[in-house]
Amino acid sequence: MPMRRSTLLAALLLSSSWANADSALSEQTLNATQELKKHAMVSQHPWNILESLTTEVGPRLPGTEGDVRAVQWAMDKFKQLGFSKVYKEPVKVPYWYRGSAHASVVAPFPQPLTITALGNSVAADVTAQIIRFDNLDALIQADAAQVKGKIVFIDHKMERYRDGRGYGPVVKARGKGAVEAAKKGAVAMLLRSVGTDSHRFAHTGVMRYVDYVDAIPAAALSNPDADQITRMLSRGEKVEVNVKLTSENRGEATSYNVIAEIPGSDLANEVVIIGAHLDSWDEGTGALDDGAGVAIVTGAAKHILERGLTPRRTIRVVLFAAEEIGLVGAKAYRDAHKDTLDSIYIAAEADFGAGPIYQFNTRVNESALDSMEIIAKQLESLGVKLGNNASWGGPDVSILPALGVPVAGLSMDGTDYFDYHHTADDTLDKVDPDALRQSSAVYTLYAWMMANLDEELRPIPLPKQ
Amino acid sequence: MPMRRSTLLAALLLSSSWANADSALSEQTLNATQELKKHAMVSQHPWNILESLTTEVGPRLPGTEGDVRAVQWAMDKFKQLGFSKVYKEPVKVPYWYRGSAHASVVAPFPQPLTITALGNSVAADVTAQIIRFDNLDALIQADAAQVKGKIVFIDHKMERYRDGRGYGPVVKARGKGAVEAAKKGAVAMLLRSVGTDSHRFAHTGVMRYVDYVDAIPAAALSNPDADQITRMLSRGEKVEVNVKLTSENRGEATSYNVIAEIPGSDLANEVVIIGAHLDSWDEGTGALDDGAGVAIVTGAAKHILERGLTPRRTIRVVLFAAEEIGLVGAKAYRDAHKDTLDSIYIAAEADFGAGPIYQFNTRVNESALDSMEIIAKQLESLGVKLGNNASWGGPDVSILPALGVPVAGLSMDGTDYFDYHHTADDTLDKVDPDALRQSSAVYTLYAWMMANLDEELRPIPLPKQ
Repeated sequence: MPMRRSTLLAALLLSSSWANADSALSEQTLNATQELKKHAMVSQHPWNILESLTTEVGPRLPGTEGDVRAVQWAMDKFKQLGFSKVYKEPVKVPYWYRGSAHASVVAPFPQPLTITALGNSVAADVTAQIIRFDNLDALIQADAAQVKGKIVFIDHKMERYRDGRGYGPVVKARGKGAVEAAKKGAVAMLLRSVGTDSHRFAHTGVMRYVDYVDAIPAAALSNPDADQITRMLSRGEKVEVNVKLTSENRGEATSYNVIAEIPGSDLANEVVIIGAHLDSWDEGTGALDDGAGVAIVTGAAKHILERGLTPRRTIRVVLFAAEEIGLVGAKAYRDAHKDTLDSIYIAAEADFGAGPIYQFNTRVNESALDSMEIIAKQLESLGVKLGNNASWGGPDVSILPALGVPVAGLSMDGTDYFDYHHTADDTLDKVDPDALRQSSAVYTLYAWMMANLDEELRPIPLPKQ
Repeated sequence: MPMRRSTLLAALLLSSSWANADSALSEQTLNATQELKKHAMVSQHPWNILESLTTEVGPRLPGTEGDVRAVQWAMDKFKQLGFSKVYKEPVKVPYWYRGSAHASVVAPFPQPLTITALGNSVAADVTAQIIRFDNLDALIQADAAQVKGKIVFIDHKMERYRDGRGYGPVVKARGKGAVEAAKKGAVAMLLRSVGTDSHRFAHTGVMRYVDYVDAIPAAALSNPDADQITRMLSRGEKVEVNVKLTSENRGEATSYNVIAEIPGSDLANEVVIIGAHLDSWDEGTGALDDGAGVAIVTGAAKHILERGLTPRRTIRVVLFAAEEIGLVGAKAYRDAHKDTLDSIYIAAEADFGAGPIYQFNTRVNESALDSMEIIAKQLESLGVKLGNNASWGGPDVSILPALGVPVAGLSMDGTDYFDYHHTADDTLDKVDPDALRQSSAVYTLYAWMMANLDEELRPIPLPKQ
């Protein structure tokens, strides 16, 4: 990547305005930024894109017919929106079939329970006594003799925060709970839902097996059902539960990363990636996760296109495949482009609901932080503040910083996000149109400015692994 | 019923205090009322009763094992709480088996839908085109040729009010929609849920067939699903849906009205009824509908019992059977006691969630309204205002005013009630313990004062039919 900034600086030394703090963005770019802001803040594009995806496709789990239709929808939508360069790149994805999920208390107080299979779980038809743990660590420390033959119930309650930091501490039990339970001879694992709501929805999400431990079935209980079991256990009696799942792993299928570009001008070989993931869990219509992201970044590029603006760098919208089942599309993208990752100027992904966006974080060379301030200043009137330089950039692009790729994270208000996350209740009515519009406006300005910024972002501070 | 008030007035004419507006309640009664208020406002009884019912019994649809267990629970609970007179009266109830309910859009945008069978519905496995109506009247006015062979979708949105008055205009489509659709040759009826929420829960509730029209299956769509179908239809394409129900009517079963009494003293043959219904729909645990009512009225009587107070009239707690499927227990009660209905001094039922109670309505002789003001004055510090004299007294006692029985209605704040009503989401966590306590306190004072009031409440203004 050429040292453009220094070239410009040299040129500016000849002019009177060389010390202008805004020098990393030309006046023309800044004027266009203002125009874009006005345009994006009244735009219907993000909502219309989201409405279209959630209505016409709906659920789109990798490997299913819905995912195939989502890929076709994305190709069609990009073309319909007028992008000149639209293509897709194949991704091998595991196909997990959900089937049905039923559970009930058999004794002492017979009644049905609301559960959902965790993604990747094997089938089940098992009746056993419940043994409850406060969290994954308590299970790991438990005496195997107490666990053997029982259904492990991990009752770790998620806390609500704007930035979603309550997720990390509890989600590890979703991923590893079944393995740790199986190590001690459990016959199934029931997880308190990783979610902040108190509605009768169980939150799904991917879990993992390891080769050296038996695969036992894994499901999530809705939060009210977790409370119900805890109340039953508090009476000191044995609680016996039946769990039936007809889930199965059905091999591999092909999905696609779907991509649209606005070709750049003099720096066309450098790419500003704005991404989201196209797949979704299958019980809702994936409105917040991640239809909103698809709408935000696609809308952002459309705004630039619609204004007839040509960025210096190429703006690339990447709709990743199969994020939910382990960043499968992101890894395929990384592998397919491993020889040209240095052409990625910066990457960001919108995958945390509909917003609004309140903070702009980055992972760029420290010498570029003045330029990040310049960008942040343009975002200020949209309610966005400059944050830190320790961003991971969003799930699908989080694997790029380790390879030297700069990333940005536009933090969305996720206060309510985990009320709906991975449930049947993740539907269009949960999206605030104004928040969605603001988020897409922020991405519009962000992408436009990044594509025109006169700054070197590399080498980045490498993340600690 | 003796004209006690006039007797008392005669006696009071001899004293200096005869004109005291509080004369309908003795000073002793008023002192005890104050004591009861303090006691009830810190009581754990209502919550503990509700926690016990929803945890240990859970769903209790008439005819099911849950209903049998609920009856036993109520008998046991009354005895455990120390009521000296506890009994049950048999009620023949229809047994409707819910089975499973699935629906999906077949074309043009295949995806699953969230539905629930309406109570009493026949089974279904039908695929047909959707025809949408704004409301029941629009269906009634429709051309049969347009409806024949299709699935009727009635999309009438319920409005939210504190007093629940949004229910009436929409619920008639639940009761009669299938019959009206069948008259025009429809093959099934899908109803937008009668509920104020926007969650992926369908609201069940009873529907009716008539002998002279074919019984077609009837189910409710969750509100987000109703919106989804409307969006699909707005694209101008035919929308084809499959509906599968395995419901069936399974004949009759026996349930019970379960009753506990605090015997009165000098007016023991007169009865103050405070009721609720013991049955519930089967997808939630019937916490708001009507576990809360059970807890409120049972707790109220317990408070009086616990203070060692003896009312002049008998206080009778009636937990009605099978309210949800058509006031079946209430009608059985009326019929079983048809010769002694004039012994009912006044009746009220708590069946609108957990409260708080904000208004005290009555249907009593107009000459007794001064005494109602006296009672209302005692409720004022609990946040309750005197309302009107046109009450129906709550569902199960609503059939009594036509037979001359005075009723009272303690209006509960139902702003959120229809968010959960008749859904799987009607669980204990939806109940506000403070509201529940206040409601039970109001019933405590109400029952105590009515049981000691020196007033003639009959004849009542007969309701217009």
